[in-house]
Amino acid sequence: MESTTSPFVSSAVETPIVGAQPHGVSTALSTNGIRDQFPGLANNWHYLDTAATAQKPQVVLDAMMRAGGADYATVHRGVYARSAHMTVAFEAARERVARFMGAASANEIVFVRGATEGINLVAHSWGGAHLKAGDRIMLSQLEHHSNIVPWQMVAEKVGAHIDVCPLTVDGLIDLDWLEANLTEQHKLVALAHVSNVLGSVLGVKRAAKAAHAVGAKLMLDGCQAAPRMRLNMAELGCDFYVFSGHKLYGPTGVGVLWAKAATLESMPPWQGGGAMIDRVTFEKTTYAPAPARFEAGTPMIIEVLGLHTAIDFVDAIGPEEIFAHESALAAQTRDALRSINSITLFGPEKSAGIVSFSMTGVHPHDIGTILDEEGVAIRAGHHCAQPLMDHLGVAATARASFGVYNDQSDVAALVRGLERVKRIFG
Amino acid sequence: MESTTSPFVSSAVETPIVGAQPHGVSTALSTNGIRDQFPGLANNWHYLDTAATAQKPQVVLDAMMRAGGADYATVHRGVYARSAHMTVAFEAARERVARFMGAASANEIVFVRGATEGINLVAHSWGGAHLKAGDRIMLSQLEHHSNIVPWQMVAEKVGAHIDVCPLTVDGLIDLDWLEANLTEQHKLVALAHVSNVLGSVLGVKRAAKAAHAVGAKLMLDGCQAAPRMRLNMAELGCDFYVFSGHKLYGPTGVGVLWAKAATLESMPPWQGGGAMIDRVTFEKTTYAPAPARFEAGTPMIIEVLGLHTAIDFVDAIGPEEIFAHESALAAQTRDALRSINSITLFGPEKSAGIVSFSMTGVHPHDIGTILDEEGVAIRAGHHCAQPLMDHLGVAATARASFGVYNDQSDVAALVRGLERVKRIFG
Repeated sequence: MESTTSPFVSSAVETPIVGAQPHGVSTALSTNGIRDQFPGLANNWHYLDTAATAQKPQVVLDAMMRAGGADYATVHRGVYARSAHMTVAFEAARERVARFMGAASANEIVFVRGATEGINLVAHSWGGAHLKAGDRIMLSQLEHHSNIVPWQMVAEKVGAHIDVCPLTVDGLIDLDWLEANLTEQHKLVALAHVSNVLGSVLGVKRAAKAAHAVGAKLMLDGCQAAPRMRLNMAELGCDFYVFSGHKLYGPTGVGVLWAKAATLESMPPWQGGGAMIDRVTFEKTTYAPAPARFEAGTPMIIEVLGLHTAIDFVDAIGPEEIFAHESALAAQTRDALRSINSITLFGPEKSAGIVSFSMTGVHPHDIGTILDEEGVAIRAGHHCAQPLMDHLGVAATARASFGVYNDQSDVAALVRGLERVKRIFG
Repeated sequence: MESTTSPFVSSAVETPIVGAQPHGVSTALSTNGIRDQFPGLANNWHYLDTAATAQKPQVVLDAMMRAGGADYATVHRGVYARSAHMTVAFEAARERVARFMGAASANEIVFVRGATEGINLVAHSWGGAHLKAGDRIMLSQLEHHSNIVPWQMVAEKVGAHIDVCPLTVDGLIDLDWLEANLTEQHKLVALAHVSNVLGSVLGVKRAAKAAHAVGAKLMLDGCQAAPRMRLNMAELGCDFYVFSGHKLYGPTGVGVLWAKAATLESMPPWQGGGAMIDRVTFEKTTYAPAPARFEAGTPMIIEVLGLHTAIDFVDAIGPEEIFAHESALAAQTRDALRSINSITLFGPEKSAGIVSFSMTGVHPHDIGTILDEEGVAIRAGHHCAQPLMDHLGVAATARASFGVYNDQSDVAALVRGLERVKRIFG
């Protein structure tokens, strides 16, 4: 292990980029005890992998404990008081999610296992019912595999085609190209609200307008946006929106699909089972209205209640504040990394708390391993976005992604660690 | 509320049926502090709805807390130590499930949201690939909706037909009929290992032999069997097996699908996304081998680790002991209820810890509501088994189902409560 008295380290720590808040970083989030609320962040661990999954505050874990412990019962079925109370709590979580997203009604909220399942649900159910041979689906070059593969599967099944919207030179989805290339054959446009690799923020209103101009629906993968942006479904103008609970400081195993009530009503069931039916006979089965129609089986009771608390946590801080905090840390990081020659930065200057980079002559995996020795956790790999890697001309990148609990000490630790990587491989 | 000095109550408490263990109930399970391990069972609550969902012991909740707290990280991707440790723990849970089920390999274990998703996965993936027009699927009259509706959906899609195996007079799946009526058109037989309404235990080996004699696969819905029976996939001879974690004293949001490795290899992916791919390009995507191929997206990390502990909990007591304990309580209950005229009992005399009944002139929902006032929680309804209700000639039944934490005091409280129901409606 390198000693902390190395000149590189001192130099990094002293750089004004890290210390002087040139982007006006408010230190409010990092000094008011937020980090102390996260049991996963003990021992000064520098966790910079929030885009993969967020740590959970104690209040979320406590809510899960209560839900699985003293308050535990099934929902929607029990005739006893505890089950009735749990049903109220479960549906209150749905109301809370609807308010968080600016949805018109809690009936527009479908609880799913995660964003991946939400997209698969739309692809199988809406896609299966509404797409036909010759139709076109528009994706983009920066999509996560979860927003590519389900569409490839449904396209192959029905005989539809997939088009790929390119990126601008700084890594944004190219809306000029999108507007020029959408046609009436396009029935669906599916885009990341925020890129999980580059932090690029989509111009949603323009995308929605372009999609609707040709009669296509717009689906947004909100995994990286929901934890850090104020959502309002009516203002965004999209038709489907999905996000995962575990990236929003909530439990694993739960996520949300939003769609307008009328759109959900146009969709046949995808998974069959209990709770999603109206009446079952071997001759004919009829189905419940949405959202129940899409929630077969005993739901993720503990997880949904944990998600409720996670949303309360995020809203109490404020998505706008979180976005400002994280994007300032990302900007600081870009500035600091620019000063290390041999580092290449990917993505737009203004990003939503995510910085991808590479270092000449060093595999990103080795960067990650050495940083780990320094107590800094980043992600290295293709980030489930191989087509974007192909576009960037790399097999993998290193990625630092920020959460509500990060502060400048994490940026400083990252920079110190990268100086060490450079020293080892230099 | 009735006082506990009512003659009915005294009579019920003193009945030798409840007190004298005529079926050789071991009190070991009820006296060694098992109940005290369940935070959901405080205040002498008589919880008799374990067939809907089981309460969770503190060790399971603690495991979830550690997994979501101090140990939290994503799996399969991180280059830092915490993620590597979590990946080891996640895959150790898969090994544990494999051992619990007597599976040949951990690669035969697919983590799903619950049994419902497991059955849908088999129906969509295996059924979509292997069923064709004119094929037949054999179900039974007592199946849960989750083992009916997915097959109706795939049958409608491919043009297959569904046959229904009738029940014997005492509510068992009629294996004589099954053997006589299976044909080479049948490609799949899907049956409940234990009925969630009647507690009927399937003669699995005979069913497997009959299915395989015509070249059909056998799928078992093990939701009610896994929490109370020793499982050994090779001995049972089935081809697919599913169960839910939340009915096995584990978390919500997690379940298991088992199939032989060769069978899983024959199945195309169902849900697309991260972690289930080999290589993604817009031209062509290739998929990972099983089980990863069926686990798209960030998995239920916290839930899978909780399930590991739940299985340890069940195995430490012993499935055989649990089955003996619960079926003895069920037999006691049947004996006690027989002494109340106006009660009709459904299902076989020997059942796996589940007793369904009705009371002349009283809706099951009213039974449940009055019992709730007495601190006794049962289920009343169609139990997601409307075709079975049709067969029984009722719209609903009342159902008491036992778990590892129940004892004779719960049976006594149920009997006292039913005496009160009878008094109110008598």
